[in-house]
Amino acid sequence: MNPDIRWDHDRESRTGIPEVVFGPGKTIEHLTKLFTEGEGLRFATRLSLEQMDALDKLATVDRVSRTAVRASKALRDLPPVGVITAGTGDIPVASEARATLAALGYPTKTYFDVGVAGLHRLQAILPELKACPVLIVCAGMEGALPSVVAGLVDSPLIAVPTSVGAGVSEGGRVALMSMISSCSPGIAVVNIDNGFGAACMAIKMMNRVGMSK
Amino acid sequence: MNPDIRWDHDRESRTGIPEVVFGPGKTIEHLTKLFTEGEGLRFATRLSLEQMDALDKLATVDRVSRTAVRASKALRDLPPVGVITAGTGDIPVASEARATLAALGYPTKTYFDVGVAGLHRLQAILPELKACPVLIVCAGMEGALPSVVAGLVDSPLIAVPTSVGAGVSEGGRVALMSMISSCSPGIAVVNIDNGFGAACMAIKMMNRVGMSK
Amino acid sequence: MNPDIRWDHDRESRTGIPEVVFGPGKTIEHLTKLFTEGEGLRFATRLSLEQMDALDKLATVDRVSRTAVRASKALRDLPPVGVITAGTGDIPVASEARATLAALGYPTKTYFDVGVAGLHRLQAILPELKACPVLIVCAGMEGALPSVVAGLVDSPLIAVPTSVGAGVSEGGRVALMSMISSCSPGIAVVNIDNGFGAACMAIKMMNRVGMSK
Amino acid sequence: MNPDIRWDHDRESRTGIPEVVFGPGKTIEHLTKLFTEGEGLRFATRLSLEQMDALDKLATVDRVSRTAVRASKALRDLPPVGVITAGTGDIPVASEARATLAALGYPTKTYFDVGVAGLHRLQAILPELKACPVLIVCAGMEGALPSVVAGLVDSPLIAVPTSVGAGVSEGGRVALMSMISSCSPGIAVVNIDNGFGAACMAIKMMNRVGMSK
Amino acid sequence: MNPDIRWDHDRESRTGIPEVVFGPGKTIEHLTKLFTEGEGLRFATRLSLEQMDALDKLATVDRVSRTAVRASKALRDLPPVGVITAGTGDIPVASEARATLAALGYPTKTYFDVGVAGLHRLQAILPELKACPVLIVCAGMEGALPSVVAGLVDSPLIAVPTSVGAGVSEGGRVALMSMISSCSPGIAVVNIDNGFGAACMAIKMMNRVGMSK
Amino acid sequence: MNPDIRWDHDRESRTGIPEVVFGPGKTIEHLTKLFTEGEGLRFATRLSLEQMDALDKLATVDRVSRTAVRASKALRDLPPVGVITAGTGDIPVASEARATLAALGYPTKTYFDVGVAGLHRLQAILPELKACPVLIVCAGMEGALPSVVAGLVDSPLIAVPTSVGAGVSEGGRVALMSMISSCSPGIAVVNIDNGFGAACMAIKMMNRVGMSK
Amino acid sequence: MNPDIRWDHDRESRTGIPEVVFGPGKTIEHLTKLFTEGEGLRFATRLSLEQMDALDKLATVDRVSRTAVRASKALRDLPPVGVITAGTGDIPVASEARATLAALGYPTKTYFDVGVAGLHRLQAILPELKACPVLIVCAGMEGALPSVVAGLVDSPLIAVPTSVGAGVSEGGRVALMSMISSCSPGIAVVNIDNGFGAACMAIKMMNRVGMSK
Amino acid sequence: MNPDIRWDHDRESRTGIPEVVFGPGKTIEHLTKLFTEGEGLRFATRLSLEQMDALDKLATVDRVSRTAVRASKALRDLPPVGVITAGTGDIPVASEARATLAALGYPTKTYFDVGVAGLHRLQAILPELKACPVLIVCAGMEGALPSVVAGLVDSPLIAVPTSVGAGVSEGGRVALMSMISSCSPGIAVVNIDNGFGAACMAIKMMNRVGMSK
Repeated sequence: MNPDIRWDHDRESRTGIPEVVFGPGKTIEHLTKLFTEGEGLRFATRLSLEQMDALDKLATVDRVSRTAVRASKALRDLPPVGVITAGTGDIPVASEARATLAALGYPTKTYFDVGVAGLHRLQAILPELKACPVLIVCAGMEGALPSVVAGLVDSPLIAVPTSVGAGVSEGGRVALMSMISSCSPGIAVVNIDNGFGAACMAIKMMNRVGMSK
Repeated sequence: MNPDIRWDHDRESRTGIPEVVFGPGKTIEHLTKLFTEGEGLRFATRLSLEQMDALDKLATVDRVSRTAVRASKALRDLPPVGVITAGTGDIPVASEARATLAALGYPTKTYFDVGVAGLHRLQAILPELKACPVLIVCAGMEGALPSVVAGLVDSPLIAVPTSVGAGVSEGGRVALMSMISSCSPGIAVVNIDNGFGAACMAIKMMNRVGMSK
Repeated sequence: MNPDIRWDHDRESRTGIPEVVFGPGKTIEHLTKLFTEGEGLRFATRLSLEQMDALDKLATVDRVSRTAVRASKALRDLPPVGVITAGTGDIPVASEARATLAALGYPTKTYFDVGVAGLHRLQAILPELKACPVLIVCAGMEGALPSVVAGLVDSPLIAVPTSVGAGVSEGGRVALMSMISSCSPGIAVVNIDNGFGAACMAIKMMNRVGMSK
Repeated sequence: MNPDIRWDHDRESRTGIPEVVFGPGKTIEHLTKLFTEGEGLRFATRLSLEQMDALDKLATVDRVSRTAVRASKALRDLPPVGVITAGTGDIPVASEARATLAALGYPTKTYFDVGVAGLHRLQAILPELKACPVLIVCAGMEGALPSVVAGLVDSPLIAVPTSVGAGVSEGGRVALMSMISSCSPGIAVVNIDNGFGAACMAIKMMNRVGMSK
Repeated sequence: MNPDIRWDHDRESRTGIPEVVFGPGKTIEHLTKLFTEGEGLRFATRLSLEQMDALDKLATVDRVSRTAVRASKALRDLPPVGVITAGTGDIPVASEARATLAALGYPTKTYFDVGVAGLHRLQAILPELKACPVLIVCAGMEGALPSVVAGLVDSPLIAVPTSVGAGVSEGGRVALMSMISSCSPGIAVVNIDNGFGAACMAIKMMNRVGMSK
Repeated sequence: MNPDIRWDHDRESRTGIPEVVFGPGKTIEHLTKLFTEGEGLRFATRLSLEQMDALDKLATVDRVSRTAVRASKALRDLPPVGVITAGTGDIPVASEARATLAALGYPTKTYFDVGVAGLHRLQAILPELKACPVLIVCAGMEGALPSVVAGLVDSPLIAVPTSVGAGVSEGGRVALMSMISSCSPGIAVVNIDNGFGAACMAIKMMNRVGMSK
Repeated sequence: MNPDIRWDHDRESRTGIPEVVFGPGKTIEHLTKLFTEGEGLRFATRLSLEQMDALDKLATVDRVSRTAVRASKALRDLPPVGVITAGTGDIPVASEARATLAALGYPTKTYFDVGVAGLHRLQAILPELKACPVLIVCAGMEGALPSVVAGLVDSPLIAVPTSVGAGVSEGGRVALMSMISSCSPGIAVVNIDNGFGAACMAIKMMNRVGMSK
Repeated sequence: MNPDIRWDHDRESRTGIPEVVFGPGKTIEHLTKLFTEGEGLRFATRLSLEQMDALDKLATVDRVSRTAVRASKALRDLPPVGVITAGTGDIPVASEARATLAALGYPTKTYFDVGVAGLHRLQAILPELKACPVLIVCAGMEGALPSVVAGLVDSPLIAVPTSVGAGVSEGGRVALMSMISSCSPGIAVVNIDNGFGAACMAIKMMNRVGMSK
């Protein structure tokens, strides 16, 4: 299938986000070649167990976020992006966001399992959250956490609905619709389980808005 | 259409909830007759402006809850049911619950506009909420308030999604699905805008569970 | 993933419901540790076959409800919560409710396979149902049973839609929507297959409403 | 628009159901002409107030069912089709079924407001229902009545979901899905508010199945 | 799970349809016992391969319809119910209808693969279809066949949407909605893939309507 | 709002379809100006009654298709595009297609009210349909007509779902999904009620495919 | 209803966004009072014609964006937020974003009617778009514009689906789902027609991310 | 199941498209027989791995498009149909279209991976696209490519939504709805992943429209 692919070589110069390898459908041979050839950053997401096993010696594989990275970019001297989850089931999605930011050179700080059923957990970390210039908030089920957080901070909040749920919330549509409907201004939403997309939005913010002054 | 109606005269003895008049579709003549004849409690919900005007001299009409009542039951000596709204747009629904409880003799206490975008408002009333044996929580948009409240109290919480919303949350389905998906245990949900149904559930609790000891 | 989890130690004092272990995603090691360490109640739900095998010697495992319990709370001297199913396929969901109530010390009485296609079965148990201060009614397919029961009793009814069904009713959404739409007042609804949530709602009722007099 | 219409003159000989006038979109002139010209049966459904006023002197107009009929067929000597509603709001739909059967010469018997929230009403008429060779059961909201009735009788049951409802059941989709999901065998379903279609199904049964012996 | 089941012994006398065994969830032991004990008709539907293997010596197993029958009722002297499919993929559903009718003693005639993409196939069998007092028409994809057939015959038509389809029609909802929306009067619809339900509707028609004269 | 609009002047040379005026939201002043200024073709669709009244002296207004045209293109010497409807309610949509083709210089032939409930009407016009190089087929309700027609002809068929329907088919989604699911190859579908879009597709076919030889 | 409202006085200090007046449901008296009393910024959105007439002398009313403002904040010395629409129908939504930013002191630059059906319009303004640190892109129908723009620029893009559309895209859900599904990284989405929410997200970015260095 | 199948032998003469073998549900024996018996074209689609292995020696099997062909028709001397994909994941669907056209004798030209996130790829091939008399455009996710292409060319465009996607776009419904909603005239849409259907539409165009002059 190789010759049919048209590489978008100048994507990074155009958009600030380099070409990234999306795992599903890639053969082991193809992936191995991508991580063997050339130089510089290689970053892959949504890897299967088999794909992660194959890349284990060629790259740094993170089995929670299901990513692999070769030659991460140097970490920039910036305040951290806060990455937050409502429950423990949302950690893989948050980890994809964290791994993407790390690979591309952006510092993060993570706060997991601070959902709205026990508000004291959120209140305990609020001062730290306020210090983050951008927040990525991952939640499944009823997806209420972004609304609560956005009412407490002045940073822009990228909401990531996750597929964690049961009954009507299974698959993440309830969380997505809930986040889109939020009564708290200052929230924008990405696709279900799209930690990568949330990280890209944060990077574009850090890159362009931070530099625009 | 009168002769086609089969009155359910012993509904109150069977279920604890007397027959109530549902306004939509009733003619002014029919409504007037219902509030003129016989004795004792008459309670009507979902009344139109025209219906409320017609009943104004025959009953106590409440234009926020769109209800009318004649001969309310005597108020029982019980702790109040807490009736809470996320926003001001949810007040008509909460008022239908309050009016139903009042007509049938149950005390209530109301707390309006305490939504999750400004948590300090909720925290200010928390001690009072904890004193209510049952809570009715009305919210539209993303419907997050019941999840937050249920994580803070030990009373059963009846969640009422409201049709207040815009874009995807218009009409109340997002709030309904969000409440059904709540991560906080101790929540059960009624139909969109169904303040009456929430009150009936609370009454059945107060009646039977309170007496079961 | 352990260090990322923030235990909600005072959940029971706040809400009357102690922390419960939700099986999906938990490793055998983690589960084993949770049931070995410390003292007092441990209760886990939605366990897989493998998880149940692993806990078999550490706890009382119930393979119908897919729960495990260690050190159940002492049974309180209260009238039983009635747990009812429309069909035999709904029994696992009802059993999750029953097991939750039992683990936390609340008596139950079960009535299975009394669906509306053969009303005489329901009529035969009606006197017993009337003696229960709270009813949990589980049904899949068209979810009609709660409407019929709520018209016959004065106890509050917690309706649990189940994923039992075929064609359009497969997965439980038809039953959920049907229960939310019920023409009988005094019904509130929890998520599909959420026997645990129904039990928590019943417990909060028994705890707070029963004590409020 | 007249010349564009291709009349299906032999529909009655082919299908047993003559051409019927569907009101929406027809001009007063067109309707008047249809009821003035020619001879024999003319039957129109879903008429607006204005259309009914216009036909009042040319036909028998029934304002509950919103139908008009000229030269009804002679009533056949057959046992009656039972036409049943759950609530009073379903009466217009049931009346469309009744009027269609009457216009085409089939006897009916109606039983209104016998919904499942008060089962004693249904039980009171059960012997009469059992005498009807075909039942048409109209219900909105959760649409539970057909399931209960079909479990009690041996006649085929045509279920008609109605648009009567509120919140999630508004418009009749919940009732439709509930009826399609029924746990009672011997039910088949027509479109929302389609009293006419239910009557046609009953007529085809009476015509063909009755004669096939 | 046995003791929890309440057998509906007089279902046949009440409704004309005897108790039937629904395969899913039944253990091999339970099924074997059901087909070994007692006398007279036993009929099971939706059997798995394993269940069919187990019943092979105890009953007549039909692997297309996934049914098993012991002691079919004697075939009644009635004209046949016509069972029709649009495509070959619909044959298992049609076969469930045919097997149900056969087990309960009703003659059938089948016409498979006569979908609307090649109308000449339908026209070739039209005289035979007209001789059937009841038609059961199974179709997936766009579900157009019932509309076409009902416009050509005067028998009542029971439409069975099937889950055969691809893209948006996968699972059968498009076929269901299409059949419910039919422009041809004299159609009523059962659940997706519900050949059994269609047969029961036909039986109730043959039983009651046929006898009502 | 004028200065904000960026006219796409070379759309016709790029795509073969000139800029067309979409009525909704246009002021009478704006519309009048558009039909007064400049020269050559002006074509407007989806006009309101008020807009049609205003353009009546400036253009040829067609009140069935709700279009207005000034300086239609000369009619090309081509075989006609066949424009077909299932019912009379679909005529406005078909007329929009016909008016668009006429304004842009393409001959049409129309066949209205030939739906599948009376197949003989379709068979009567089949020879004429076969002579059309392209067919546009408009249908609401269950949208079955395109499937039947495409199985009988060798011309490409553009299916237009219409919003004509009742109950579940109201608004046209059932017809759309049905047409997308068609079992007959050689059908492609445009948006609900989009007669204009169907005509544009036909024009692009006639323009490019006709000339490619 | 006044005494029930709990003003969130410190919202601006907490979140950077001051309290804003949401028009729907507010009485003229209430609105007039809000714009008469006190000092400093007052900003109202989603005003009706009647509300705009009433505020005309008390505030600067913009009838395209349906907003009113008193005492706008001083314009900050920042590069402009780019506000873009696909069509002219999207201008009211874009104007709500522009008016919100202007009222709160943030410069904007608008680019209307640059949808994907005529890409040259977008290419003509690309250099200007690249100079904006944040882009707000409004589109209805298929909502494709954000995907195209985000592939061409390195600024974060806030996508606003609008309710502009016809047939299946009417109401904005198709545009919302399309934007959520975008293949271009660096997009986050707000609710349908939510120009205000998009502006708040942009402000939080400009405020916090811009200052974080 | 063989005897139940009614072959549509004159489909090619009627519709221009010969009978094609749809793989799912066919046994290996049946398939083998079909490719062994008789003469001339045999073409099968949607083959499983096992089916492709079985046909490998009897036909030309293409494992990307999952098709098999015996005795392809001679290639006609016509300009090529352009077959385009947005991403590499859409290639199997595009290949089904290409293989169908090739088997039936129509030349194609393919352009893969030219999605809207990198417009320069599309612009590079635009002159070639303009030379194709018909375009088939396959895209998943937000399905934006057809809108962009149709605004740049004057050929008719058949849009094929693919099931490629994640979160809300998984399964292809978002792409389908997006394509149906396109703001660019001259697009018509087939079912999700229906490369075969798109090819048939193109063939009917080439056959009939090309010959109509």
